Amino acid sequence: MSVDSAAQVTDEQASTGVRELAQAAKTASRALRSATTAAKNEALHALADALVADADRILAANAVDVERESAAGMNAGLVDRLRLTQERIAGIADALRELAALPDPVGEVVRGQTLPNGLTVRQVRVPMGVVGMIYEARPNVTVDAAGLALKSGNAVLLRGGSAAASSNETIVAVLGEALERVGLPRELIQSVDAYGRPGARALMRARGLVDVLIPRGGAGLIQTVVAESQVPVIETGVGNCHIYVDATAEVDQAVQILLNAKTQRVGVCNAVETLLVHADAAESFLPAALAALAQAGVRLHTDETSATHAPSSADVVPATDEDWATEYLSMDIAVRVVPDLDAALEHIRTWSSGHTEAILSNDVAAVRRFTGELDSAALLVNASTRFTDGGQLGLGAEIGISTQKLHARGPMGLAELTTTTWIVQGEGHVRP
Amino acid sequence: MSVDSAAQVTDEQASTGVRELAQAAKTASRALRSATTAAKNEALHALADALVADADRILAANAVDVERESAAGMNAGLVDRLRLTQERIAGIADALRELAALPDPVGEVVRGQTLPNGLTVRQVRVPMGVVGMIYEARPNVTVDAAGLALKSGNAVLLRGGSAAASSNETIVAVLGEALERVGLPRELIQSVDAYGRPGARALMRARGLVDVLIPRGGAGLIQTVVAESQVPVIETGVGNCHIYVDATAEVDQAVQILLNAKTQRVGVCNAVETLLVHADAAESFLPAALAALAQAGVRLHTDETSATHAPSSADVVPATDEDWATEYLSMDIAVRVVPDLDAALEHIRTWSSGHTEAILSNDVAAVRRFTGELDSAALLVNASTRFTDGGQLGLGAEIGISTQKLHARGPMGLAELTTTTWIVQGEGHVRP
Repeated sequence: MSVDSAAQVTDEQASTGVRELAQAAKTASRALRSATTAAKNEALHALADALVADADRILAANAVDVERESAAGMNAGLVDRLRLTQERIAGIADALRELAALPDPVGEVVRGQTLPNGLTVRQVRVPMGVVGMIYEARPNVTVDAAGLALKSGNAVLLRGGSAAASSNETIVAVLGEALERVGLPRELIQSVDAYGRPGARALMRARGLVDVLIPRGGAGLIQTVVAESQVPVIETGVGNCHIYVDATAEVDQAVQILLNAKTQRVGVCNAVETLLVHADAAESFLPAALAALAQAGVRLHTDETSATHAPSSADVVPATDEDWATEYLSMDIAVRVVPDLDAALEHIRTWSSGHTEAILSNDVAAVRRFTGELDSAALLVNASTRFTDGGQLGLGAEIGISTQKLHARGPMGLAELTTTTWIVQGEGHVRP
Repeated sequence: MSVDSAAQVTDEQASTGVRELAQAAKTASRALRSATTAAKNEALHALADALVADADRILAANAVDVERESAAGMNAGLVDRLRLTQERIAGIADALRELAALPDPVGEVVRGQTLPNGLTVRQVRVPMGVVGMIYEARPNVTVDAAGLALKSGNAVLLRGGSAAASSNETIVAVLGEALERVGLPRELIQSVDAYGRPGARALMRARGLVDVLIPRGGAGLIQTVVAESQVPVIETGVGNCHIYVDATAEVDQAVQILLNAKTQRVGVCNAVETLLVHADAAESFLPAALAALAQAGVRLHTDETSATHAPSSADVVPATDEDWATEYLSMDIAVRVVPDLDAALEHIRTWSSGHTEAILSNDVAAVRRFTGELDSAALLVNASTRFTDGGQLGLGAEIGISTQKLHARGPMGLAELTTTTWIVQGEGHVRP
């Protein structure tokens, strides 16, 4: 079934078709379950080489998507994310080679012991089996997801946005051919795009065939998948992150961290969105901090007290509850002065999305309370919120940043694409 | 709201009421988040003491349930599970004291390092927050769940079966009073039973307030929760377990393991349900094995070949595909002779529920393939399937046996009721 006919697919056709693909993925995944790390790394290099060798074919397919979406009025930023170039393809291929260099999570013994009765017990990391990925119009995610799945021993079922359908169809074909050249089944990397939106729904209902579904994209996409999926989901993304500047914070250092957290990169989930300042630090910290933010082009959404410390040149608007709740993903920040640490903790508990909070403080007791009492995926001390990132925290490749509590929390590496099996060896042991 | 009025509750009332309880649980859970292990253990002992001290009150409430359900025709086995006695209450209290003696999972550093840039990174176990538990008419689970949640730092919301409503209401009251006596909020242990079935539905929809939902009970209950819950679920339970007797198995040992796995306790998820026998072992193993099973009162559901080895005194019926798919939970076993290991693996892949499979073999290559290629929560070698159990594998308390792949797989201990937080400490670190 070709991508072009996706518009005419019924839910029933999609369900049958996607379940067939998922069954093929499940069968193919057996080839990877006991593959050596060397064989998987060889395959990753083969995929990288194929992308570079077939770059012209991929670029031609990508041009079709770019042209159609531009004509349809897609905004320039999204078109840029959609567009591939020789250089971008080379970069995507390099990322696969870097994956090959990372340790293999499969086979790691998580726990193990010999019990008093002589049974040996090992809890060993094994592949999930079949990983589903639902994402938007970014063809690089197609390769990224395929590589992460392969390295962790899983087959992958991809559902990219229709805007990148032509690019993804060609990329999946190129990767499949490369897999076959190294003796692996091409069904390890498959797309359900030919089944259109009904295909995405079918993927979310393929419980028992798909082991985990990871949505990557905007809040709307993630919410839809979380609400509708019967397959277990790992929720990624939304980051309404806070920095709390304590009474004892070192002012210059705090200004630098704040600027970095807000402006080093905008539009990412680990950028800071709300600044909370202890009342005792307001006089010393806020004038310098707000001037630096304004200078960098950040609009300030201030409460009454912090407004009095904003420079006259700043773009200042009054903050409402809506600001405390907002993940701006833009050059905006909400600012609030709080009477004490308790008020800061209460504000964060009320408004945070549970992604990342930072305390800037030189007070041991305050740091201990902040890191002990808050319930977020990452709690940072005297460091920028931008460090909540798999690469920055030493995990190697990052699949995403989980904001849920089950299975994975915070930055997820390859290990989070595995599960475990208990292997128990006896010599005739029976239970008394 | 009292349990007696549960029949009249609307979905809307239940939703409002359960969300209020969940919010109170979330607030109360903060008191446990930073509680010391000593404080939690003291609370567990206080709960145990209170159960024993208030045993008469609990027994009076339990008598109401037992009388009503007996009169309504509940079968004798279920009534026995429902019934409490002084001795049973003492046993339940002892289980709480044993929990107090186990290591505290909270605070464990799962990973940690100092990065090249000087950032120190620790991934630390923290409580989930609020755990929901949906179960059937067994009042001991009420205490068990409350104790496990408390030890792991979580508040718990309980939904027991209506058949045990009076018992559970009194037990929750007794436990709540005990919590208050040691200075903890009684909202750490709450029941939603007053909201009846709509309350169970509301619990499954309290996403964002309830962090994880664990169903304990029959397959029907578990399927309902998995299908309907918007709160993340840990699926437990169904075990269609296999024993594969390889050509090289030691016959006497294999017979003993088989008997143990089938008859040591019937009606449990880690009992064996299907026996697969390599054709080369059929002559030597099956006559002794089937005679021993028949002698123990096990009905044999046999394929054509294995039927020829059954003793004439045995209760033998022909096996169909339905037998391969069935978790009997009774004195029944399906028996099939397979031509080789590949056929055994294929049978297990097709029919297993992914709980536990055992190979009985003296062949290193066969054992390696069996433990490397199958995808179940536990793979055992020359040991009874009955060892797939938290207590038997050295995990201490067991919450259940997970048959899913996310978060927890196989026997779950206290650690599986926790999540993690990344704590990152710098000294002015910003991202370059």
